[in-house]
Amino acid sequence: MTLKARILDLKCRRPIIVVNEADAKRLGVIPGTQVKIFDSTRPVPATVYVSGTMVGQGYVGLSPEAAGRLGVEDGDRVRITPMPPPDSLPYLHRRLRGERLSELEIKSIITDIVEGSYDEAGIAAFLVSQLVYGLSEEELTALVKAMVETGETLAFEELVYDEHSIGGVPGNSKVALLAVPIVASTGLLIPKTSSRAITSPAGTADTMEVLAKVEFEPEELKEIARRVRGTLVWGGRLNLAPADDILVQVERKLHIDPYPQMVASILSKKVAMGVSRLVIDIPVGKGAKIESISAAERLAAMFITQGGRLSMNIKVAMTYGGQPIGHTIGPALEAREALETHIAGKGSLSLIEKATTIAGLVLEMAGKTPQGSGRDLAYQLLRSGKAYEKFREIIEAQGGDPEVKPEDIPVGKYKFTMTSHTDGAVTHVDNAALTLIAKAAGAPEDKTAGIYLHAKTGYRVRKGDPLITIYSGSKGRLSEAMDLAAKYAPIVVESMLLKLIP
Amino acid sequence: MTLKARILDLKCRRPIIVVNEADAKRLGVIPGTQVKIFDSTRPVPATVYVSGTMVGQGYVGLSPEAAGRLGVEDGDRVRITPMPPPDSLPYLHRRLRGERLSELEIKSIITDIVEGSYDEAGIAAFLVSQLVYGLSEEELTALVKAMVETGETLAFEELVYDEHSIGGVPGNSKVALLAVPIVASTGLLIPKTSSRAITSPAGTADTMEVLAKVEFEPEELKEIARRVRGTLVWGGRLNLAPADDILVQVERKLHIDPYPQMVASILSKKVAMGVSRLVIDIPVGKGAKIESISAAERLAAMFITQGGRLSMNIKVAMTYGGQPIGHTIGPALEAREALETHIAGKGSLSLIEKATTIAGLVLEMAGKTPQGSGRDLAYQLLRSGKAYEKFREIIEAQGGDPEVKPEDIPVGKYKFTMTSHTDGAVTHVDNAALTLIAKAAGAPEDKTAGIYLHAKTGYRVRKGDPLITIYSGSKGRLSEAMDLAAKYAPIVVESMLLKLIP
Repeated sequence: MTLKARILDLKCRRPIIVVNEADAKRLGVIPGTQVKIFDSTRPVPATVYVSGTMVGQGYVGLSPEAAGRLGVEDGDRVRITPMPPPDSLPYLHRRLRGERLSELEIKSIITDIVEGSYDEAGIAAFLVSQLVYGLSEEELTALVKAMVETGETLAFEELVYDEHSIGGVPGNSKVALLAVPIVASTGLLIPKTSSRAITSPAGTADTMEVLAKVEFEPEELKEIARRVRGTLVWGGRLNLAPADDILVQVERKLHIDPYPQMVASILSKKVAMGVSRLVIDIPVGKGAKIESISAAERLAAMFITQGGRLSMNIKVAMTYGGQPIGHTIGPALEAREALETHIAGKGSLSLIEKATTIAGLVLEMAGKTPQGSGRDLAYQLLRSGKAYEKFREIIEAQGGDPEVKPEDIPVGKYKFTMTSHTDGAVTHVDNAALTLIAKAAGAPEDKTAGIYLHAKTGYRVRKGDPLITIYSGSKGRLSEAMDLAAKYAPIVVESMLLKLIP
Repeated sequence: MTLKARILDLKCRRPIIVVNEADAKRLGVIPGTQVKIFDSTRPVPATVYVSGTMVGQGYVGLSPEAAGRLGVEDGDRVRITPMPPPDSLPYLHRRLRGERLSELEIKSIITDIVEGSYDEAGIAAFLVSQLVYGLSEEELTALVKAMVETGETLAFEELVYDEHSIGGVPGNSKVALLAVPIVASTGLLIPKTSSRAITSPAGTADTMEVLAKVEFEPEELKEIARRVRGTLVWGGRLNLAPADDILVQVERKLHIDPYPQMVASILSKKVAMGVSRLVIDIPVGKGAKIESISAAERLAAMFITQGGRLSMNIKVAMTYGGQPIGHTIGPALEAREALETHIAGKGSLSLIEKATTIAGLVLEMAGKTPQGSGRDLAYQLLRSGKAYEKFREIIEAQGGDPEVKPEDIPVGKYKFTMTSHTDGAVTHVDNAALTLIAKAAGAPEDKTAGIYLHAKTGYRVRKGDPLITIYSGSKGRLSEAMDLAAKYAPIVVESMLLKLIP
């Protein structure tokens, strides 16, 4: 059936169409039916909504995403047909029975996912099959390749280095703001792309965005990378491995994160960027994404094996993830801390150790320094101000103010400081609780929201000493965050005397 | 955040809300975020859509379903908060790791599904876990009970009989229009509820709706059942085991139909109706839902075991499902054929044999006749017109015209007859192709659409003899159905001479 397009002011995550009740009957569709919309080009899948008044008979309302993907404008004619099952459905069914799939079959599933032929139920089934049956080495390589081939790729004419953390520890987003400039200051090419926060209070892209732009077209990115040797940009604009974003959305809904998909997610984006030397950081500790060394080892082995299969030299660093990195959580606070550390050449031990360890491993892979001395070199580059100089170049190249000072960065005007109820020592800092509190305060959408940690594990505190300060741009959000802080007590202080018996 | 409700004229399958862009920012939500909407009662989960113009700041647009479930009206104030993960998520995760769940844990998952706390991804994960790990006997019983307890139930003060087909064979929807009156004519109570077509061209409720109303409130249904002993109504209005409808929607999207869920789907509705004596029909044959005897035996064993655990006496009949039942497919055509068979006391052998076999088993279970003689008794009741008399009572009690004649029932005014290209015998009738063709012609939404089969397997035909006639209420749909018929050749005629070599 052919209908006249009307673009709706209604943003949805996936394309929808709205048809008149009479047309719905003629089309034989009901709310929720999946259809394909055609103009002259390839079809776009969409979900049907029905209205008696929102669109007239003979018209079809398109969500902006649907219209954008079709490239149609108000008044254009589009054709609507019921959506057939995805071509790759038989492969998904075989997968659900535990059978192994060929490279072509996996490619077919990923292509259908990227084109929107699967709805969330189908994508969930694919992810659950990974959780249940795992992926063979061959399948995982095929998955990475399929994810790369269904998106854009960038090519550089020289070796591309990178570092990437699997994340999951609060305060971690700022590490790259030190590590990347350290590496780039030696002339190595490290065009880092990263994500915005998915479940955390700040992704590296969110934090860098406090200091500079992070959204660039592929050609702009290449130009900047070639010129200043390092970038800190958001990968989302580049359409690298677009299957990943779709899969991640469903993983979040299911609260699952199968290891093979974690590996595929990271490596597909790196392959698409032409990376051939990569350091992976796996934070391990209570409340982190990976809680045990043995789990980290399993995951590390998958990275190493796939590196070999994909001609990418990979080193995996397991790092301590039992409490936040540095003293800050949230985009503005973390950007401040990164900048302070660059300027002073010193700062939080956990932050400096982590950043120089990661950067040092990259330097060793490049042969800039003998094995085992990378961290020292990285530390010198940080202390000497060379890394800061490079960081300013990167900020400037990405359209920021290279002279920005930490105190110039606005943080939430509403704040609350939680103090210790007792004398004693900090025995535990709760990653998960801090993440919840920072997000309740508004991070990462509200860049000024977050947490400053005055005390970390092992610190001695006196009654009344500050433990954390919560920042927020909204009074209401601050009070929600305060409620959570009271409920969870994210910093545990214990005195020597545990109990007194009369 | 509290917003003023505005009910939108926008029908969706699951509740949605539309908020203004500014409010979305304040709420920290983006299109696709799951939220809970509160008024004074229990919260309703919904998906967020964002618009700059459709609703003003301070307002929230509610889909009619969301508004209905909350019971709010235009101008009422509702509160929106981010949706927490479902309480039962840890159980689902354990299930995905292959662990067995307790009765309480299964109840918790089903409760969350019914309340809408899971989106389709979560429901898909639950279904896939059944496909992969199956369900233990205990778990399946727990699933049935949970599905019953999360919906309405009806109670009768006497033994309740029923018959139910797992379906999957075209033309099957009319069997109950014979079997139920046969059983009810002996005074047994058989308040049959059935579904509308899910993937077939006609469900029993669709076909009965050609002759009478099928939507009743629970109390009306009970009154009719007590008075005339049999009903043929749609179960959907009664809110029996509402989890089933939600699960079925996702099964359809995934094109999966795990056996445990099939058993739970049927038995939960039967338990909710107070059924204690049940005959299950499993059609077996190429193109049916179950294609092999061994698969049918596995499924039958599950029904029998669960019957024991649920104190329900169950008999399972495997029936021939290799080609359609009777000569008609589609609501109006099938209603005609059922009526003709009642009036004449004779008709298509496959239809009469099947209906009398099923009804006979119910009669035997009730002790109305010795084992092995049920079919004969059922046949006598049909031949003698007693079943027809009862059928007319049922039609009248359900608000239809008991004097309706087959020729009074309108069928599609657009029709096309496909003829044989050769002399020969029908060697194959393709269930799946006939289903596609009948649906393309408009069944079941267009009740007048469907197929009349002039020939079935084993029939001898001459070149030019009619094979099928396709009916449709729409010229366009008829032509789509004709295209499919040409493509699939649903009736295969082979002559003895297969090939002549020069």
